[in-house]
Amino acid sequence: MMAVTTATIPGGVTAPRNFRAAGTRAGIKAGGGLDLMLLVSDAAAQAAAVFTTNLATAAPVIVSREHLVSSGGTTRAIVVNSGCANACTGEDGLAAAREMTSETARLVGCPGDQVLVASTGVIGVSLPMEKIRRGLPATFAALGSAPADGALAARAIMTTDPFPKESAAQIAIAGLDVRIGGMAKGSGMIEPMMATMLGFVTTDAAVPKVLLDKALRAAVDDTFNAITVDGECSTNDCVMLLANGASGAVVDEASYPLFLAGLTAVCRELALGIVRGGEGATKLVTVTVTGGATSSDARRAAKAIANSLLVKTAIHGGDPNWGRLIAVAGRAGVRFDLSRAAVCIGSTVLFKDGRPHDEAAPEAAAYLGGKDLTVTVDLGSGGESSTVWTCDLSADYVRINAEYRT
Amino acid sequence: MMAVTTATIPGGVTAPRNFRAAGTRAGIKAGGGLDLMLLVSDAAAQAAAVFTTNLATAAPVIVSREHLVSSGGTTRAIVVNSGCANACTGEDGLAAAREMTSETARLVGCPGDQVLVASTGVIGVSLPMEKIRRGLPATFAALGSAPADGALAARAIMTTDPFPKESAAQIAIAGLDVRIGGMAKGSGMIEPMMATMLGFVTTDAAVPKVLLDKALRAAVDDTFNAITVDGECSTNDCVMLLANGASGAVVDEASYPLFLAGLTAVCRELALGIVRGGEGATKLVTVTVTGGATSSDARRAAKAIANSLLVKTAIHGGDPNWGRLIAVAGRAGVRFDLSRAAVCIGSTVLFKDGRPHDEAAPEAAAYLGGKDLTVTVDLGSGGESSTVWTCDLSADYVRINAEYRT
Repeated sequence: MMAVTTATIPGGVTAPRNFRAAGTRAGIKAGGGLDLMLLVSDAAAQAAAVFTTNLATAAPVIVSREHLVSSGGTTRAIVVNSGCANACTGEDGLAAAREMTSETARLVGCPGDQVLVASTGVIGVSLPMEKIRRGLPATFAALGSAPADGALAARAIMTTDPFPKESAAQIAIAGLDVRIGGMAKGSGMIEPMMATMLGFVTTDAAVPKVLLDKALRAAVDDTFNAITVDGECSTNDCVMLLANGASGAVVDEASYPLFLAGLTAVCRELALGIVRGGEGATKLVTVTVTGGATSSDARRAAKAIANSLLVKTAIHGGDPNWGRLIAVAGRAGVRFDLSRAAVCIGSTVLFKDGRPHDEAAPEAAAYLGGKDLTVTVDLGSGGESSTVWTCDLSADYVRINAEYRT
Repeated sequence: MMAVTTATIPGGVTAPRNFRAAGTRAGIKAGGGLDLMLLVSDAAAQAAAVFTTNLATAAPVIVSREHLVSSGGTTRAIVVNSGCANACTGEDGLAAAREMTSETARLVGCPGDQVLVASTGVIGVSLPMEKIRRGLPATFAALGSAPADGALAARAIMTTDPFPKESAAQIAIAGLDVRIGGMAKGSGMIEPMMATMLGFVTTDAAVPKVLLDKALRAAVDDTFNAITVDGECSTNDCVMLLANGASGAVVDEASYPLFLAGLTAVCRELALGIVRGGEGATKLVTVTVTGGATSSDARRAAKAIANSLLVKTAIHGGDPNWGRLIAVAGRAGVRFDLSRAAVCIGSTVLFKDGRPHDEAAPEAAAYLGGKDLTVTVDLGSGGESSTVWTCDLSADYVRINAEYRT
């Protein structure tokens, strides 16, 4: 990839021009709080999206997929509720998801299939449509006429998230400032198998559909698809990207690498925010696997390490227990050569050339007291590598998930 | 399979005739306790074994595999230490494992390759051979001359196990009483990918090598390979089976189903003991998946459910959160039809025909207050089924594994 310059700027989905967003309270969340979100592009935008691979697909995913096909990806608005996933809710759930989009389309003044929809919260509970019907006009009114602050929108899509996730970047294409902004939610049931959680990204570049699809898939693969909190893939996962062209800049093959770099930077910050805010998480852990015979071997081993309960609890406890890292690499189903393998915690070598270096354990233990950690495992089997991000596993994770819903 | 009668009898590895076992304290475990075990057959026994598929293979696994080949499976003794896994310890580790067998062979009076060896404990720490050299004669002396109680042996192989696991059964072959006995250890790093943890089973039947191998693989697949505590596969896993023929009975093709049933009964009790005593476990959960397009689909979905953190924490919290079960089935990578899928907790239907039955949730929640639970998920895609066993995930699991070794 060419060298690119990406500047981080404040704001989220409303950092790009001519996007407005609002988050209001419709009473869907039992505990109160913002729970209804509208994101509107003043003009029709080109949309791309990736969805969960979970076969227990939620109603809003089904409806959004249909709308992307029938509209050719032309999209004016995204409507999202938190507090109820509208998953495993049968025909009534599908009807509810459709009504969310038709009500939004009526307010925005666009065809129904130019609205995408997402829901997040508890599975198997019917959407309280009367609350959404009552709430939507207020959300629409909150958009105002000027570009709204996306911060309330980012809060309205949260469930167990300890904090909102927003990110924005600026790039220059043909002398024009192009902005890319995004927001995401997700804390538990996080292991992307295609997309993950909910993510919404906007840009004021104009991007042809083919390039927009390609860029989103590439960016998601290295960011949202490279994180895990608990190895679970939700029924409702999606990442949606809207490009409205308001900057006047057009992304073409020449400027594509720059656009992809900006998009990836925004998605990475959102994805790492999800891991930092993972249920019960106290540490962000960057897991890099090197020495893979193939890149898919490296990714598979990295994912196995990132999902290992023994690794995640050892890191939580500040224990430089490199044997658990080697044991996971050995069972990951990839090529692995113990005599050439290595483990580093931070920059401290703990195992190499078939031998422990336990004299370095105190140094590694001190490093593990930090909040932003790197572990590296060399499979000793080739030249390919992969990086994924995970968090530690704490007793709070158990508490949150043993008590959620009850 | 033919109908068979298997009677459970007291005792473990020393329930079958002419096996003696002892467990003593050699000072390997930092916290004290029994840590050295000898199991001896008075006459040469036929041995079969299954070993970990982990590529970071521990030294004792390498040595035991070699000995099984060079001796043709003729085995007199098994020597085991706890407190140190002798894994990732390089050439010194291999030399130590070999010396454990040669020292045992000298004491027992048999060729070196008629001794098998296993180790369990922390990975990457060198075996304290001077303690084992000093300890082994005492362990051998403790065997005495009469059949010893296997109970001390079962304690000497424990690490984080909250209790020892022993089981024995009696069957009749050609009018002769045949006994099968076993012991196992394991509490964390438990998900069999071939064998799991350490398991030792004895029988006083004579069993030809081909049938003994076949029986062990079949029994392990339905028992040790059908359990999980934390989805981790250890570097040291093995199950070893010794048949010394002291009962006078010979297992042939006709009596094989009966022998397999007895062996499976013993292995199942040991395997369920491991799950009941899983790190932090408070509940044993039988996960049955029905409606699979293939039996491997059913097994794969059952394993995914049994390893799901969200399922295990929900069960820990007594929350009949069937949506999590459906979500895991949907992401398990198997054929799945949401409109025909179903979830039962105990005998209570919570989801069927695409619709929630949340009116039954209080009944299911009451059931989840128990200690021995069954959950059933129908994939709605065929006629195949599979059962696996798991435990709940508690804050104690995190505590045990964040603090272990530090």
